Amino acid sequence: MSPSILRKTAVAFGVCTLCGAAAAQSSVTVFGVVDLFVGVIRNDQTTTQLGEGGMSSSRLGFRGVEDLGGGLKAGFWLEGALGPDTGRGGASFGNGTTATSENPLLFQRRSTVSLSNQWGEVRLGRDYTATYWNWSVFDPFSQVGVGRSGNLGIGFAALTALQPGASYGTSVRANNMVGYFLPNGAFGPGLYGQVQVAAGEGAAGNKFVGGRIGYSSGPYNVAAAYGQTDVTVAGSVTLDSWNIGGSWDFGVVKVSGNYSSMTLDGAVNEADQDNWFVGAAAPWGQWNFKASYAQVKRGGALSGQKANQWAVGVDYNLSKRTALYATYAAIDNTDTNFTVLSNASTLTRGNNSSGGQVGIRHSF
Amino acid sequence: MSPSILRKTAVAFGVCTLCGAAAAQSSVTVFGVVDLFVGVIRNDQTTTQLGEGGMSSSRLGFRGVEDLGGGLKAGFWLEGALGPDTGRGGASFGNGTTATSENPLLFQRRSTVSLSNQWGEVRLGRDYTATYWNWSVFDPFSQVGVGRSGNLGIGFAALTALQPGASYGTSVRANNMVGYFLPNGAFGPGLYGQVQVAAGEGAAGNKFVGGRIGYSSGPYNVAAAYGQTDVTVAGSVTLDSWNIGGSWDFGVVKVSGNYSSMTLDGAVNEADQDNWFVGAAAPWGQWNFKASYAQVKRGGALSGQKANQWAVGVDYNLSKRTALYATYAAIDNTDTNFTVLSNASTLTRGNNSSGGQVGIRHSF
Amino acid sequence: MSPSILRKTAVAFGVCTLCGAAAAQSSVTVFGVVDLFVGVIRNDQTTTQLGEGGMSSSRLGFRGVEDLGGGLKAGFWLEGALGPDTGRGGASFGNGTTATSENPLLFQRRSTVSLSNQWGEVRLGRDYTATYWNWSVFDPFSQVGVGRSGNLGIGFAALTALQPGASYGTSVRANNMVGYFLPNGAFGPGLYGQVQVAAGEGAAGNKFVGGRIGYSSGPYNVAAAYGQTDVTVAGSVTLDSWNIGGSWDFGVVKVSGNYSSMTLDGAVNEADQDNWFVGAAAPWGQWNFKASYAQVKRGGALSGQKANQWAVGVDYNLSKRTALYATYAAIDNTDTNFTVLSNASTLTRGNNSSGGQVGIRHSF
Repeated sequence: MSPSILRKTAVAFGVCTLCGAAAAQSSVTVFGVVDLFVGVIRNDQTTTQLGEGGMSSSRLGFRGVEDLGGGLKAGFWLEGALGPDTGRGGASFGNGTTATSENPLLFQRRSTVSLSNQWGEVRLGRDYTATYWNWSVFDPFSQVGVGRSGNLGIGFAALTALQPGASYGTSVRANNMVGYFLPNGAFGPGLYGQVQVAAGEGAAGNKFVGGRIGYSSGPYNVAAAYGQTDVTVAGSVTLDSWNIGGSWDFGVVKVSGNYSSMTLDGAVNEADQDNWFVGAAAPWGQWNFKASYAQVKRGGALSGQKANQWAVGVDYNLSKRTALYATYAAIDNTDTNFTVLSNASTLTRGNNSSGGQVGIRHSF
Repeated sequence: MSPSILRKTAVAFGVCTLCGAAAAQSSVTVFGVVDLFVGVIRNDQTTTQLGEGGMSSSRLGFRGVEDLGGGLKAGFWLEGALGPDTGRGGASFGNGTTATSENPLLFQRRSTVSLSNQWGEVRLGRDYTATYWNWSVFDPFSQVGVGRSGNLGIGFAALTALQPGASYGTSVRANNMVGYFLPNGAFGPGLYGQVQVAAGEGAAGNKFVGGRIGYSSGPYNVAAAYGQTDVTVAGSVTLDSWNIGGSWDFGVVKVSGNYSSMTLDGAVNEADQDNWFVGAAAPWGQWNFKASYAQVKRGGALSGQKANQWAVGVDYNLSKRTALYATYAAIDNTDTNFTVLSNASTLTRGNNSSGGQVGIRHSF
Repeated sequence: MSPSILRKTAVAFGVCTLCGAAAAQSSVTVFGVVDLFVGVIRNDQTTTQLGEGGMSSSRLGFRGVEDLGGGLKAGFWLEGALGPDTGRGGASFGNGTTATSENPLLFQRRSTVSLSNQWGEVRLGRDYTATYWNWSVFDPFSQVGVGRSGNLGIGFAALTALQPGASYGTSVRANNMVGYFLPNGAFGPGLYGQVQVAAGEGAAGNKFVGGRIGYSSGPYNVAAAYGQTDVTVAGSVTLDSWNIGGSWDFGVVKVSGNYSSMTLDGAVNEADQDNWFVGAAAPWGQWNFKASYAQVKRGGALSGQKANQWAVGVDYNLSKRTALYATYAAIDNTDTNFTVLSNASTLTRGNNSSGGQVGIRHSF
């Protein structure tokens, strides 16, 4: 709609902001997910919880597309994380804040405006980084819940220990970003890709440059991504990250995997982190059986830190929108490591972590 | 509308488990209340205000139900408090935070996901406690505004004085809750009920167990509720609460009442608090006349504290959604008590509190 | 959709005054703006940014109107600022808080409930003040983005310097307000106006009284506004403000202007501030060319402070809802002044500030 007739009236002769607006046609889709589970996490202590986001992250969003003619479209997307276990909104994973019961609704999962046509899409705002997205799409647990491969470190886990005070806000998403996405098939059937630049607005740890290129044909799909971000320390410390993933759909089972490498450059204590996982998902009627094995290994100043994770899960789809699910995962840490499932409680170095979740995922 | 072009890239490849859901037809109801009044509260000082929630608490919510076939339904409910007098969102009553003009939108009034069929409903998330709900439904002022019986203490009022630092977050609602509701009529015509368990997630003051059972037939309705919550002090201090309420609809007038008892167990200073009220509501065309008398009396370490409240009100329904209302209430405190209407300003022990509100309630 | 099963229990028994409302047909319009730009601001330093709100302030809102019959209407309006560059909600300009990436969604742009008929509209809640609105409607840049005339001071800029600790929250909007708006044409063709009182709720800096009167006929439109607000200092310090604006639409170009005067009364250091601007907007097919010249001059204790601003811009309307835009503006400060474009970075007294923005505005 126009900046509303409401506004026109107002400009013309006053302040009647209530008049015509309600009559105007809206073109907004309200969407979201409420996902709650009963779960147990065994770290040094055992915690029982009613938690959120075991199968899909809970969220509330508003989005829409406007057809501008001639193949040109404009679209917006505002999506925020929810914590329906306590009624909070919620800071998205990776934005540097801890979720508390008072966390407000923010649109930090994605807030963008786009223009697209046959030449691709230009997208402005806050969005997933290419590197995270490429990791996430090949994880049979979709990087959510107790079984997600990201438990072993989507971000560079020990950054603060290596560089006191260091952090960065771009491991999952980045603010203030300009992105370009290839159109589907226009530059070759099956080819897809994107590039992204976040200027960082002068704030350290927010500057990001990255991209992703992939090819999908019939049962197989393969894609690689690269990203570089600065971190919040003096000097020119950057974190380079790349990963390559793929999947093959055999019909009865779809196997997938990803290998990821992160390197801290220009640091006093140079270090690197390699992650990989293999996974499988086997749909059977309304059921979907899932399993994955993931490993993280750190080098340089973090040499010797290593952990493995096993995860198995099953979804029962009551409909396209609603599913029951059960997931179990266990992390086996080496002596010097202390990776945990979620952040439920502390874990002594070398101890193991395990947990399970049984829940319901309802999307709208 | 169709799924956004912005999602197409994700749908085309990858393991995006949610994309199907996003493509499904949206089925969200946006609902809410905006209730603003001009009011005066006379405590030690007199305060004039444009306030919110004189007849119904202002709110904004999103909810929906999905029919899964075979009598099975899935539903979600996200509802947050609003403070439209200042544009804030707002912490719900009973969640332990003070509303300020910067309070964000949180879904703390209710955030749940449910599965229900002929055997009842299982509901997960944050919701009203059974004990509060059973009190609230029999109050002709619906526990809202200057006339609500809860001015005399829905929660255990003097808890902090008895147990320094003590508090609890479950007087009205509880986080992280699993609830079960009886189906309508399946276990006997007129019978209804619920049980609730909130594990508390290891945080003191958040663990709650409770239930409610009632019977409704023709003009009468009676129900009792019980709840137990822990409080945030060392040791095994718990607060036991029960209440019984009922109503009889004579046609020209509906009378109702409730008796509530709260006991602090295992405390250094044991104490208890009894509340009761009787009320009447007489609809007459578009008008609805309301009155109530309520009393609180404390015992044990709080012995001698007592207060009475009178309230009268009238609503004029312009439609089902929109009403004008006027309410007046006065609290008569004994020498050692200082219960106030709202929390507008301080009151010296033994002084009385009174106030009135004239406003508009618009729901959508 | 039908009222949720989740509500049935409540509907079946109890004194649930809202259930009727919940069952009623929903009538909510979800609306908003996502406006993002790539911009450069040159103050003492040059900052490149992906920012929000270059052409219209980004926002998300919910509103509706209910026809009560006999010409009577009820309406609500909840509108909050967004910062889609980072996914935050956002404190509205003028509410005294600084926007950070963690700012929540608040409905501080407007949150009101209204009743209106042929005698006018009574509106309660948080809303624009008459003085700000009268300034804003005559600015060809609509008081938004790098070209807005308000860069030179919608509020009384140097208040804190004159009165340590002093501030007020009513320069743009006011909380807890009762407003009355004249109906369109009922008291004379072309006449419009409003009066507003915000009691302030006992908080200093929030009390506001103001009004606006205007006349519009054919191509011309003229209006004047007056407002008085208290400030947060001891004693009876008030800020008086008035402005008069007008526009003449010649068809090929619409010229407009405003003269505004603010005086700090009862202050230790008395001071005043005068602002004026002239502007022009020339639509040409899908294009809209805009320009303005604005000046601020301070007197009394702030004598000698002065700044000028030039701004030019062009919009290209892809549709009524979606536009591309480019704007450039420059501020020329006198030796003692340091007014800046936006608040991107600091500026030494006497230095100049300039900047440009190229972006997309999508409304829904």
